[in-house]
Amino acid sequence: MKNTELKITFQPSGRSVFALPGTLLMEAVGRTGIALQTPCGGRGTCGKCRVRILDAQAHCPPSAADKRMLSEEQIQQGYRLACQAYINHSMTVEIPPESQFGAAQQILTTHTGRNTILNSVIRKQYFCLQAPTIQDAVSDASRLKAVIGNVAIPFHLLLKLSAFLRTNNWTGTAVVAGNRLIGLEVGDTSQESYGVAFDLGTTTLVGALFDLKTGEEKTVLSAINPQVGFGDDVISRISRVREMRGALTEMQQAVVKAINSVIKGLVEQVGVNTRHIYEAVIAGNSTMQQILCGLDPSALGEVPFVQTFDNALTIPAQSLGLAINKGGEAFIFPQIGGFVGGDTVAGMLAAGLENPKKPVLLVDIGTNGEIVLAYNGKLQATSTAAGPAFEGARIVQGMRATAGAIEKVVIGDDVSLNIIGNTRPIGLCGTALIDAVAELLRKGIIDETGRILPPDEAPSGLSEQLRRRLISMNGHTNFLLVPANEAASGEPIYLWQKDVRELQLAMGAIRAGINILLRRAGLESADLGSVLLAGAFGNFIRRSNARRIGLLPQIPCERIHFIGNASLFGAKLALLSSDERARAERLRRGTEHVDLSLDAEFQTEFGMAMMFPDGDIDACLERPVK
Amino acid sequence: MKNTELKITFQPSGRSVFALPGTLLMEAVGRTGIALQTPCGGRGTCGKCRVRILDAQAHCPPSAADKRMLSEEQIQQGYRLACQAYINHSMTVEIPPESQFGAAQQILTTHTGRNTILNSVIRKQYFCLQAPTIQDAVSDASRLKAVIGNVAIPFHLLLKLSAFLRTNNWTGTAVVAGNRLIGLEVGDTSQESYGVAFDLGTTTLVGALFDLKTGEEKTVLSAINPQVGFGDDVISRISRVREMRGALTEMQQAVVKAINSVIKGLVEQVGVNTRHIYEAVIAGNSTMQQILCGLDPSALGEVPFVQTFDNALTIPAQSLGLAINKGGEAFIFPQIGGFVGGDTVAGMLAAGLENPKKPVLLVDIGTNGEIVLAYNGKLQATSTAAGPAFEGARIVQGMRATAGAIEKVVIGDDVSLNIIGNTRPIGLCGTALIDAVAELLRKGIIDETGRILPPDEAPSGLSEQLRRRLISMNGHTNFLLVPANEAASGEPIYLWQKDVRELQLAMGAIRAGINILLRRAGLESADLGSVLLAGAFGNFIRRSNARRIGLLPQIPCERIHFIGNASLFGAKLALLSSDERARAERLRRGTEHVDLSLDAEFQTEFGMAMMFPDGDIDACLERPVK
Repeated sequence: MKNTELKITFQPSGRSVFALPGTLLMEAVGRTGIALQTPCGGRGTCGKCRVRILDAQAHCPPSAADKRMLSEEQIQQGYRLACQAYINHSMTVEIPPESQFGAAQQILTTHTGRNTILNSVIRKQYFCLQAPTIQDAVSDASRLKAVIGNVAIPFHLLLKLSAFLRTNNWTGTAVVAGNRLIGLEVGDTSQESYGVAFDLGTTTLVGALFDLKTGEEKTVLSAINPQVGFGDDVISRISRVREMRGALTEMQQAVVKAINSVIKGLVEQVGVNTRHIYEAVIAGNSTMQQILCGLDPSALGEVPFVQTFDNALTIPAQSLGLAINKGGEAFIFPQIGGFVGGDTVAGMLAAGLENPKKPVLLVDIGTNGEIVLAYNGKLQATSTAAGPAFEGARIVQGMRATAGAIEKVVIGDDVSLNIIGNTRPIGLCGTALIDAVAELLRKGIIDETGRILPPDEAPSGLSEQLRRRLISMNGHTNFLLVPANEAASGEPIYLWQKDVRELQLAMGAIRAGINILLRRAGLESADLGSVLLAGAFGNFIRRSNARRIGLLPQIPCERIHFIGNASLFGAKLALLSSDERARAERLRRGTEHVDLSLDAEFQTEFGMAMMFPDGDIDACLERPVK
Repeated sequence: MKNTELKITFQPSGRSVFALPGTLLMEAVGRTGIALQTPCGGRGTCGKCRVRILDAQAHCPPSAADKRMLSEEQIQQGYRLACQAYINHSMTVEIPPESQFGAAQQILTTHTGRNTILNSVIRKQYFCLQAPTIQDAVSDASRLKAVIGNVAIPFHLLLKLSAFLRTNNWTGTAVVAGNRLIGLEVGDTSQESYGVAFDLGTTTLVGALFDLKTGEEKTVLSAINPQVGFGDDVISRISRVREMRGALTEMQQAVVKAINSVIKGLVEQVGVNTRHIYEAVIAGNSTMQQILCGLDPSALGEVPFVQTFDNALTIPAQSLGLAINKGGEAFIFPQIGGFVGGDTVAGMLAAGLENPKKPVLLVDIGTNGEIVLAYNGKLQATSTAAGPAFEGARIVQGMRATAGAIEKVVIGDDVSLNIIGNTRPIGLCGTALIDAVAELLRKGIIDETGRILPPDEAPSGLSEQLRRRLISMNGHTNFLLVPANEAASGEPIYLWQKDVRELQLAMGAIRAGINILLRRAGLESADLGSVLLAGAFGNFIRRSNARRIGLLPQIPCERIHFIGNASLFGAKLALLSSDERARAERLRRGTEHVDLSLDAEFQTEFGMAMMFPDGDIDACLERPVK
């Protein structure tokens, strides 16, 4: 009865529960969600579940097992085996870390040097229950929960429970996700516990397999998102859903198939069984996440770009068709807005944007540029349509960063190029575009309005080799990068005036977004403690050049960092740590979603941001960079 | 970000939440699980969601809507519309009862005069959302939750949500069970909300249909549990499951079919659509509940009689095959032990056994007698195998209480009988058995050992009519109730010596149980404030006779009460009130399950209890009873 229950408070968590006199202390611990070590199944023979009663120990006389397993001094200090102690008085109980299940805390270090504790949502526990007797005839469900903790048993597992326990001599391995039992396995499989983290991109998906017991990354694999066959970008895929019956299912099945192939590849590399994968954590942009879940993305394709959900989703993996353990779950990242999706939240998590000491700007450059500014305990996020220029599209001789692409341009007295794949050049990719424009700005060949100067207007000190590369056609000047005889096609490769305009548009969109966030925050570029570049493109960009063209704020290069596939890293953190998962939700909830189109000065900012910075800006470059 | 969140404390609940500056106050209220009245959908035009800021009101300037909807005095007192107020400061907020959704509290009165508030787990709410705009592009899920409260949206409903909202112009009716959305209905169906409560007996099932908005009982129906075709009692049904493949499914389907027939009958009587029934609350003994759920009851059929679950189960009604709303749920009562099941917990709930002022004994007499003793804030429960004597079985000329059964016996100078159905007598049912033995004890014809005295040993003052009815055969004496010429069969009907022995066994088992519980509690019969008789048999028994034979404790008859089908009444309470449901779980958890077979003195108690009390015990009878 409620008013005769005793209050038990646990330290260090401070949590309290109420229990009837005569309740086993271990059961009371379980109600707080903490599982104690019980390799002996609560028989009092292993001594692992010892806890310390901080007061009222006089009311808890030591049991025979206590006397056997603990020293006299420990008993006097209040230590008792929780599996043998019965509650007869209100008390405060300390749970030593070593008595907690999964207690050997492993520290994970994040990208930004932040430490976090390995505490996956998935927990596996081998149990060995005492068979019921007439003196101890509690229900099967309660018997199991007394050992594995007070978990919710879903109905489909309750249907199996009694036969499972009796067939397997009251032993087995419980698989628990958070507070829910998700599986019962024969024998001791507690060491086989894996999860996968996915960065689900519009073009590429990358998956990594982790050992949830150790946090170890076993292996990584990537694949093309087969939805590229249905359109290059999210808008074309949304259009397809809107226009074609069955397209959503078709695209969902395609991506699930690709994810399952990656999972298959991952487990084959390291010899893990897919039924020992219990969770898939997936971070993608809002459209990719919604299509994966089978949630109609149509409203993401038109003003005002509304997503179906924002809180993270936890879904049975089976209902998505993911080929992991049949009781396994999929965790889909929380989403901030139609174009600031789970990949951005994952990136924010990886970048440690919760309460950084100095303002931090996170930029993920792609077809959409996602920009997040963390400052002063606040967060703002926006996305801006940069267009595909950085991926080589809309550039006259542009291409993706594959074999034959010029990927680096250095201009001294003449032009030096790096070509991907040791072959003749075919075209130029995004990084080369930035390089070429930055170098030509430095030489004074491109002016701050973006005009490529004709030979007669070019600076007088220019080398003849460079001056010869300025080729005027139809009233514009283009810059010859590769003469016809060196090019793969036999046609010359230019940086076209039109390409510079495309870059200005792309860069201007991103830079306007950055400027608006800074202005709203009342910050200057110089206030930024760091600029973090995420995503595949960010990894190849040359910082000084990106800064020279004005894509990035004018700050010293050592404050500009590449953080790689932050989305995948964020997915990994959420897979390995419940704390990080909670942090992701806080980041989502705590972030103000800024719609640039609503900013009265967006057009002005955009126009101004398309202009290149003046020529002094390299002065702050303290040391050479790649 | 966590450390910039503001703490909002709500009164009278005392619950707190943390919210970011700029959070709508209504959203913060929703996070506590409280739903406010929002007929206008949060537009600030109905004034129903007003709350009172107890401090820090200066930080919450009145909105235009506040000024329109509230008086100046109210604004000064701190009243604000929660749908229009944004949080910018930590504060304490009072939620007036009239602003809470479902606030018009209706009081239900229980059997024992206890009052409880109508607050069904099922809540229906008509909503009318504002369509998203570019200024207000929150996700569909958050848009809905801002109005209906912070409910969990299961994945299958999330899949439907976006299309539902857009197809229905952002209006509809949400069906919520506790904290979970279970349905979305087109239009305003909020007035159509029904539930069914069932007492699922081994022999009979009784269902009642309730309007969940008003608590009104619309109608009741009963039916035979078709499992009687598979065995009369729980043991024979368990045996069938153990011995016959498919028997569990067969019996489950049979009872589900019967429940569905009752539901069909109920709705046809009052013109309700089964899809407006959202919950079925079911109370039955442990075996009936497990078979209904498809949970193998085999372990209930052998020592140590272990049940699969003890906490209440909430199961999708569809997974049991119940013909109610397809998102509806089944609530299966918590069970205390193998033979103290959900029906007993429901009976305890109906009987108000939580903290009665004086000790209360609850007795449900049937094939198994369930006995519960509530005293001093404690609860003990046991069951005892009375056998089927009270149902007329094992009695030489016994029968169920149907047409032709002698149901009442009064003995003065001669014998008077009541026969069920105005026909010639066929045999005697349980109440007549008790009557006959009690009356013969009063006449001194049966002695305290249970022996029917032969004519020569019978008391000297006995009338000749009675003495002639004492017929000795084979060394025993039997008592003639109906001579051959008055009986339906043309054969005389006797109370056989053997029948008295059967009654002694049945009564002894129950009385030993009562005595052991009283002894363990340190109580005497006289300490009992009341004895509550539950179940169909209890309703027909004559209290003074039950007491005379020693079946019930020797206390004044006015302390003995019939409470009817307490199990059904408890199911009704759990259907109509979440508080009562929580109370049922507390009763389950707070009850000590006493296994009589473990009591060292059970055999002695049983032997003693088989003896009839001596002849003075009627002296305490203060007034005649039926």
